[in-house]
Amino acid sequence: MEKLEQLYEGKAKKVFKTDEPELYIVDYKDDATALNGLKKGTIHNKGIINNRVTNHLMKLLEADGVPTHFVEELSDRETLVKKVTIIPLEVIVRNIAAGSLSKRLGLPEGAKLQSTVLEFCYKDDALGDPMVNEYHIAALGVATKEELGKIAEYSFHVNRFLTDYLKDVGIELIDFKLEFGKTTDGTIVLADEISPDTCRFWDSKTHEKLDKDRFRRDMGGEEDAYKEIMKRLLGE
Amino acid sequence: MEKLEQLYEGKAKKVFKTDEPELYIVDYKDDATALNGLKKGTIHNKGIINNRVTNHLMKLLEADGVPTHFVEELSDRETLVKKVTIIPLEVIVRNIAAGSLSKRLGLPEGAKLQSTVLEFCYKDDALGDPMVNEYHIAALGVATKEELGKIAEYSFHVNRFLTDYLKDVGIELIDFKLEFGKTTDGTIVLADEISPDTCRFWDSKTHEKLDKDRFRRDMGGEEDAYKEIMKRLLGE
Ligand SMILES: Nc1ncnc2c1ncn2[C@@H]1O[C@H](COP(=O)(O)OP(=O)(O)OP(=O)(O)O)[C@@H](O)[C@H]1O
Ligand SMILES: Nc1ncnc2c1ncn2[C@@H]1O[C@H](COP(=O)(O)OP(=O)(O)OP(=O)(O)O)[C@@H](O)[C@H]1O
Ligand SMILES: [Mg+2]
Ligand SMILES: [Mg+2]
Repeated sequence: MEKLEQLYEGKAKKVFKTDEPELYIVDYKDDATALNGLKKGTIHNKGIINNRVTNHLMKLLEADGVPTHFVEELSDRETLVKKVTIIPLEVIVRNIAAGSLSKRLGLPEGAKLQSTVLEFCYKDDALGDPMVNEYHIAALGVATKEELGKIAEYSFHVNRFLTDYLKDVGIELIDFKLEFGKTTDGTIVLADEISPDTCRFWDSKTHEKLDKDRFRRDMGGEEDAYKEIMKRLLGE
Repeated sequence: MEKLEQLYEGKAKKVFKTDEPELYIVDYKDDATALNGLKKGTIHNKGIINNRVTNHLMKLLEADGVPTHFVEELSDRETLVKKVTIIPLEVIVRNIAAGSLSKRLGLPEGAKLQSTVLEFCYKDDALGDPMVNEYHIAALGVATKEELGKIAEYSFHVNRFLTDYLKDVGIELIDFKLEFGKTTDGTIVLADEISPDTCRFWDSKTHEKLDKDRFRRDMGGEEDAYKEIMKRLLGE
């Protein structure tokens, strides 16, 4: 597998073509951003941790029946994935009120939600990733009803699986963001990453934050938090 | 029917108890507000027009199978309605992009939507009536799945009926806001009002605005616009 030219560089990852037309390589960086890119920094070895944590979880999810873009871990920071057209939605699953939901609905951070909340944001930097519902998504032509049904089903599946899996290592899954893509043959697969950058992980006992909120909120200790997640999930 | 003490005074209407425990009287004012109450004014005879237009449309909708709170028009500004517990949702139906949707999704005002958009906003002044989806509504305990299903069904019904009805009098129905309530026996009924305060009406030929946007946007001519709606709908 040959790594060819870079296709795009995001805030957290670079994506490269390969000599196999249906495969890409993602390359995880240590760069961290928050507040829609206003706050910038680095978290030492974040790229390694996010790459390895994402792949570990994607493998487990794939085995549990959720199709993913994961193909093969190539190095500490590089992973071979299926090339997809990303569906321009941030799919957010919430078990406990936190972050923007707490603010928008006036719910104290940490409040258990009566039922799981699924949210969609339209990925459009110029518009500030506005929240949309199933009717907006249909009217914008972002996804068909069938595609959105699959995305919702997979998202709840990921939530059930990860909630149980993380509980066993003393982590409470507060909320997380997923991205889905469509392969060339039209299959919907889980893409992007599942990491402390894209999930809220709280220690089950102390409720200590073990995720990017430490960086977002200038709490310090983000490097140790990321390492702790790696240790609990991969034992190292 | 005796009009008893005032229960509450809103921005556009007052609500009174009657000597019949299941019935209220709503009394329409000429007061107009916009921008969440920041802009205040009056539109001469708006109360009369909104009362009569609302009742006219509610009667037609009731006959077409949508249960409403309407009981009897008592005077130019007063109507007897069923007492309901308002479900704290603004239910917005959109056929054409305008207002907040245009801004949020970057769609030019007047653009036909590929499919009808239904939106829910949680009625909470302190939170600024945030947009919510079906999952937020369930988690907040605002309405059950069954209630929300009925509300969506009725809202699309109202849209189909009004779109056709208004087309015949040269009015294009751009979007509108509904409120639903629950009677003492648990029945979901259409409540509040359907008027140029709560709908965007455009002249089908000239696309001239015949609704509260004239007031919101300081365009002038709001009195004539309201009168024109009354004339086209009630012939007077
Ligand atoms: N399998 C894949 N095929 C193609 N693109 C992918 C795949 N997985 C992830 N991507 C995309 O790679 C890009 C780079 O990732 P990164 O997380 O750095 O982006 P970002 O800065 O967060 O930008 P964005 O707002 O697009 O998410 C993202 O646009 C992401 O959606
Ligand atoms: N049948 C009904 N029974 C009880 N309350 C009703 C009924 N129909 C409408 N209402 C309520 O009457 C109140 C007064 O109406 P008005 O339109 O003036 O309120 P408002 O200032 O817009 O405030 P709100 O933010 O509550 O809508 C509103 O709260 C409305 O929901
Ligand atoms: Mg990203
Ligand atoms: Mg009102």
